[in-house]
Amino acid sequence: MSRIYNFSAGPSTLPTAVLEQARDELCEWHGTGMSVMEMSHRSKDYVSIADQAEVNLRELLVIPSNYKVLFLQGGATGQFAAIPMNLLRGKSTTCYVNTGIWSKKAIGEGKRFSTVKVSASGESENFTTIPARGGWVVDPEAAYLHYTSNETIGGVEFQDIPESGGLPLVADMSSNILSRPLDVSRFGLIYAGAQKNMGPAGITVVVVRDDLIGEVLPGTPSILDYQQQADNGSMLNTPPTYPWYLLGLVLEWLKGQGGLAAIEEVNRRKSAKLYKAIDDSPFYSNPVDVTCRSRMNVPFKIANTDLEKSFITEARSAGLANLEGHRSVGGFRASIYNAMPESGVDALIAFMTEFERKYG
Amino acid sequence: MSRIYNFSAGPSTLPTAVLEQARDELCEWHGTGMSVMEMSHRSKDYVSIADQAEVNLRELLVIPSNYKVLFLQGGATGQFAAIPMNLLRGKSTTCYVNTGIWSKKAIGEGKRFSTVKVSASGESENFTTIPARGGWVVDPEAAYLHYTSNETIGGVEFQDIPESGGLPLVADMSSNILSRPLDVSRFGLIYAGAQKNMGPAGITVVVVRDDLIGEVLPGTPSILDYQQQADNGSMLNTPPTYPWYLLGLVLEWLKGQGGLAAIEEVNRRKSAKLYKAIDDSPFYSNPVDVTCRSRMNVPFKIANTDLEKSFITEARSAGLANLEGHRSVGGFRASIYNAMPESGVDALIAFMTEFERKYG
Repeated sequence: MSRIYNFSAGPSTLPTAVLEQARDELCEWHGTGMSVMEMSHRSKDYVSIADQAEVNLRELLVIPSNYKVLFLQGGATGQFAAIPMNLLRGKSTTCYVNTGIWSKKAIGEGKRFSTVKVSASGESENFTTIPARGGWVVDPEAAYLHYTSNETIGGVEFQDIPESGGLPLVADMSSNILSRPLDVSRFGLIYAGAQKNMGPAGITVVVVRDDLIGEVLPGTPSILDYQQQADNGSMLNTPPTYPWYLLGLVLEWLKGQGGLAAIEEVNRRKSAKLYKAIDDSPFYSNPVDVTCRSRMNVPFKIANTDLEKSFITEARSAGLANLEGHRSVGGFRASIYNAMPESGVDALIAFMTEFERKYG
Repeated sequence: MSRIYNFSAGPSTLPTAVLEQARDELCEWHGTGMSVMEMSHRSKDYVSIADQAEVNLRELLVIPSNYKVLFLQGGATGQFAAIPMNLLRGKSTTCYVNTGIWSKKAIGEGKRFSTVKVSASGESENFTTIPARGGWVVDPEAAYLHYTSNETIGGVEFQDIPESGGLPLVADMSSNILSRPLDVSRFGLIYAGAQKNMGPAGITVVVVRDDLIGEVLPGTPSILDYQQQADNGSMLNTPPTYPWYLLGLVLEWLKGQGGLAAIEEVNRRKSAKLYKAIDDSPFYSNPVDVTCRSRMNVPFKIANTDLEKSFITEARSAGLANLEGHRSVGGFRASIYNAMPESGVDALIAFMTEFERKYG
């Protein structure tokens, strides 16, 4: 096997140890005579796998007992609809902070169900910073305040949890959940598609304070009704059993790494050395305000865009894949989630240094 | 590896060859240096996997070009909502045929969006038969006529396609899709969760005539909007990439078996010999009208229910798993989808014969 360093923004690299375990167990799980993907979701074996994933997630994130943990389908985009459908509870207004493309998508879907007030926006600064907290306008009558804790395209990340002015705080953490410790009790709801920092695509985690659920908009599909899903252990219908199992393997791996405090140290180190390499060089640049640079997604550019194609081609030859920037912004992007080993970041920096030496 | 015969109703057994291929490719797919589950859904490699699955499904089912094929999340239960949301198109009434528990679930969710008229019901006969076609009451003003082509719990299956009185015909084929040739042109829409006859849980196929889509109910979540999904090649958001790949492997396997005409012959033979073993014995019984017995799910009982536990325990020891009947009806059930080899049915019949000899 010849694995490369995969800097894809999502779906993205998974720990090699997780893949190897999945491979070894694929045809038969623990002497049961069948694959996990062949198990009834109601079987004792499968329920033990599903339950253990929840136990580990609760342990890693220190989730208080008054929060429900749901494992759903439909991705964050499904949640963009489910959140107003579940949390409006008789209100008609919602507040959103706009820090980039994912915020805008959440706002767009939110508008289909509520009157959205944008509490703050980084758009006038081309999303290179997070609007100063003092200037946020939060409507006290709104059902919740929504923000995106990390923007994968702009590379902007909240370094702490914002104040919500008394509203339930809702966060899309698809791209930085489990990358650092988190005080879940500050939130009404957090959600994350698994395919960036937790596992494969096809499963979405929702952590929601239990007093916020139980009343949905008329016409809410049952699969998006948090109370129905909570009452059925996320098995109102057949869940995505194999993605759930893989997510569980990633959580076990993360515990083995020492949990969130330990992985935060690695993430801090990985991102710091990559930003330093960019900042120390006249050849590379990153436009993001240093106070809100993402530890997960590091966009960067070179002045001579004619060299971009060579950079991508030569990087691929050096075993560094998927460094293209998002098509909406161009340039390059290195996504360095939990599962990207520090050796991958070191290899990238070495390559960048050599590329600059050749072409700079 | 010691594989058993797994008669689970779903998620259910998969072809061993598919599992072995998935295992061999798990850590690295075709020299790319990464697992399929680590690939961006926008990458050339992944798009080729996704496209090939659609090509193969279109070939196997001979899907006309004016039908869209969608690969979605949320299972059949998600479609129970999505279908009225997409197909009402200004109408308020829908027609459903009730042939068992899955029909009732579809009706229950359908009622949240429309006035449901039950065109026919097998409930008074305890769902042991399909109501005679002459007696169906179809409202010409309804948006569509919905039926469940196979009921996994009652073991009742339509052997042909019903007339719909001019309405778009909609079928939940979750448990018998790809088990026999199908004239797709007779339908407005067919849908199926993959986890019974096509792959793992977490991906749902929708085949819909293109003139029926483009107008959704207000408040339809974008992920359930067929037109939006069709316009984006089922990648409006990140799809369940690994389940989609696995579904593709099953389709390749099915082509290797000779396609739907060939698998129908196997399914006919497997089910005929199992029903014969039941009917020829005074010890076992199946209550279903012989004209609509399911080739996929074979429920059966023994008169002395005290022996049920021994049957399950001894069957498990003989390498035959998950033969328990659904908790709502008791007894036993053998689900013998495409992927159950004929040798598994033979082993089950041999076990049943021996069990009867011992205890009958």
